[in-house]
Amino acid sequence: MPNPSQFDVIKPEVRGLSAYTLKHFDADIKLDQNENPYELPPDLKREVVDRVLRRPWGRYPEFIPTSLIRTLAKFTGWHEEGILVGNGSNELIQASLTVTLGPGRTLAVSQPTFTLYKLMATALQAQVSEVFLDAEHLTFDVDKLLEAARTADVVVVCTPNNPTGNLLEREALMTLLKTAKGLVLLDEAYHEFSGQTAYSLLPGHRNLVVLRTFSKAMAMAGLRFGYMMAHPEIAREVHKSKLPYNVNIFTLTAAELVIERRAALNQGIAALIRERDRIFGELQKRPAIRAFPSKANFILMKAAKPARQLFDALYSQGVLVRDVSSYPLLERCLRISIGTPEENDRFLVALDQALENK
Amino acid sequence: MPNPSQFDVIKPEVRGLSAYTLKHFDADIKLDQNENPYELPPDLKREVVDRVLRRPWGRYPEFIPTSLIRTLAKFTGWHEEGILVGNGSNELIQASLTVTLGPGRTLAVSQPTFTLYKLMATALQAQVSEVFLDAEHLTFDVDKLLEAARTADVVVVCTPNNPTGNLLEREALMTLLKTAKGLVLLDEAYHEFSGQTAYSLLPGHRNLVVLRTFSKAMAMAGLRFGYMMAHPEIAREVHKSKLPYNVNIFTLTAAELVIERRAALNQGIAALIRERDRIFGELQKRPAIRAFPSKANFILMKAAKPARQLFDALYSQGVLVRDVSSYPLLERCLRISIGTPEENDRFLVALDQALENK
Repeated sequence: MPNPSQFDVIKPEVRGLSAYTLKHFDADIKLDQNENPYELPPDLKREVVDRVLRRPWGRYPEFIPTSLIRTLAKFTGWHEEGILVGNGSNELIQASLTVTLGPGRTLAVSQPTFTLYKLMATALQAQVSEVFLDAEHLTFDVDKLLEAARTADVVVVCTPNNPTGNLLEREALMTLLKTAKGLVLLDEAYHEFSGQTAYSLLPGHRNLVVLRTFSKAMAMAGLRFGYMMAHPEIAREVHKSKLPYNVNIFTLTAAELVIERRAALNQGIAALIRERDRIFGELQKRPAIRAFPSKANFILMKAAKPARQLFDALYSQGVLVRDVSSYPLLERCLRISIGTPEENDRFLVALDQALENK
Repeated sequence: MPNPSQFDVIKPEVRGLSAYTLKHFDADIKLDQNENPYELPPDLKREVVDRVLRRPWGRYPEFIPTSLIRTLAKFTGWHEEGILVGNGSNELIQASLTVTLGPGRTLAVSQPTFTLYKLMATALQAQVSEVFLDAEHLTFDVDKLLEAARTADVVVVCTPNNPTGNLLEREALMTLLKTAKGLVLLDEAYHEFSGQTAYSLLPGHRNLVVLRTFSKAMAMAGLRFGYMMAHPEIAREVHKSKLPYNVNIFTLTAAELVIERRAALNQGIAALIRERDRIFGELQKRPAIRAFPSKANFILMKAAKPARQLFDALYSQGVLVRDVSSYPLLERCLRISIGTPEENDRFLVALDQALENK
């Protein structure tokens, strides 16, 4: 081949990255992706499908999905011009980072957290300033976060945090918004399980960006939908890196109906919160396990055994959880998504079995 | 507010950009987005929907959509490891540019063309080297393209080119692949209408990336699907900037079925090619119009009148086309997507009416 190596063309920062991956496991009891185990009601799904069959599939979605954005504006109370919709909230995180980060710019991010933020910032050749959680309690180290925020162009905080379940308290968030030099991106993927949102701080803080997903409480992980709320001037800039027609007609239709019939999901969400608290109590009874308090639909737990061994022992009994022991500070940790009461009971039985077998 | 202006946090390159937009117009005859006017067969759509109803919506799609990628590999003949799927081909263009471009790097792109390439490269703070088409014939200026390719990190060529319809001949492409310093991204969005693809050059050229979409010939613009074929080493790097779970379960299901029943689309594609050639002949008979030869499912035409005036005159008769007169070299040009024979006839009648009214 005449040209020496085309791979020089890949930026060195990217070549150095490991891709975000997830090995596929089949399992009876799937507690590994923080999904909502309660499916949308069958009549709602049927209505989505009927509406989609009435739309032309060969035509692009609307350039701006006005009807859905209007519905979201009514649902959230935020301005239409400050709302962007995405193919999952990941896409909006990516667009937000693309318009703000590059060489010489810095992302501050608490660690451990969802791995994509750092991956995206690195691909954009930005500096990443990692602020570690308190090593003992896995809570936010607010002082260090504030210090990093003073010089960072963007701060990302996932609250409740994945995979630890801890929350950034409102007081700390308000100080963060005042202290931050740049944007504060709050990933509220799990907010419905926490009873807390930064929503009401949007009007007073032009540097606040709130991200939401329909993959967790809203039971639409397979459909990919997320949205962003921010000051309209910020939304207008982020919009420039968002791909046109990024949400397809199926998801547009489903998201709108799910918002309209939001009440149908409340029972499932309440059950997940109850189950989270029940399982946390159950785990606390087991001396071989340390469970961390969680405001999300999952619980992080630390075992005496190596995580891989416990993971395998659970998996051999048909229970799939997430081994997060390779994350910083999370040695011997597993993350357990909350399922239905029956699934959670199966997990507890499998756990006890796994802990007994040395 | 304590911090001076958060808008400093937006990169200046982004602040300087105008977003990609498309004003919404309702119209009887929609010839503005190069869509396929022939919908997928109703039994195929019904089958997609039935399959989707059998899948859980609350669960994430597979991390790697193995079954669809295997189907694509069989369909195209290319290695599974060299195929990436996206939420429209735009997403894969974006990922390809993100892993290759940044400050100090250059994208070479022929102009006029699809506006997103330049927009994305600019947001990534790369240099954009624009290579203009031959001003008279609107064909590729191969010599200038080769010259730019010698130093650019990435060259993007849309072939057939949008909005001009011209093709990069195979001979020129082979020279380009040999000359290019970096990656050659070929956007083959319209290849089914041209009878030409660079596919067979993939095995010999590790710097070739071929992008395909299901939004045009495959009649799935509303569902958003595209794929990329490249050397597995390139695919692995581009994958790092592709978001996980980027294609939802509806589109995964539909794309797989559409490939399996590809033959059902052939008649429509053949009709569009026939109609394109018929309309080109018709336009050539009209002395007030200059039509440019096209290998795509649209035709670019230049009128004596100002484009906006002609656009309005067509629109007032219910025919929506695309005013591309603000693109470089395309003064007084409109782009007409090919519709059904009835739609195309309506366009011709409206055009004659518009040309008569001074």
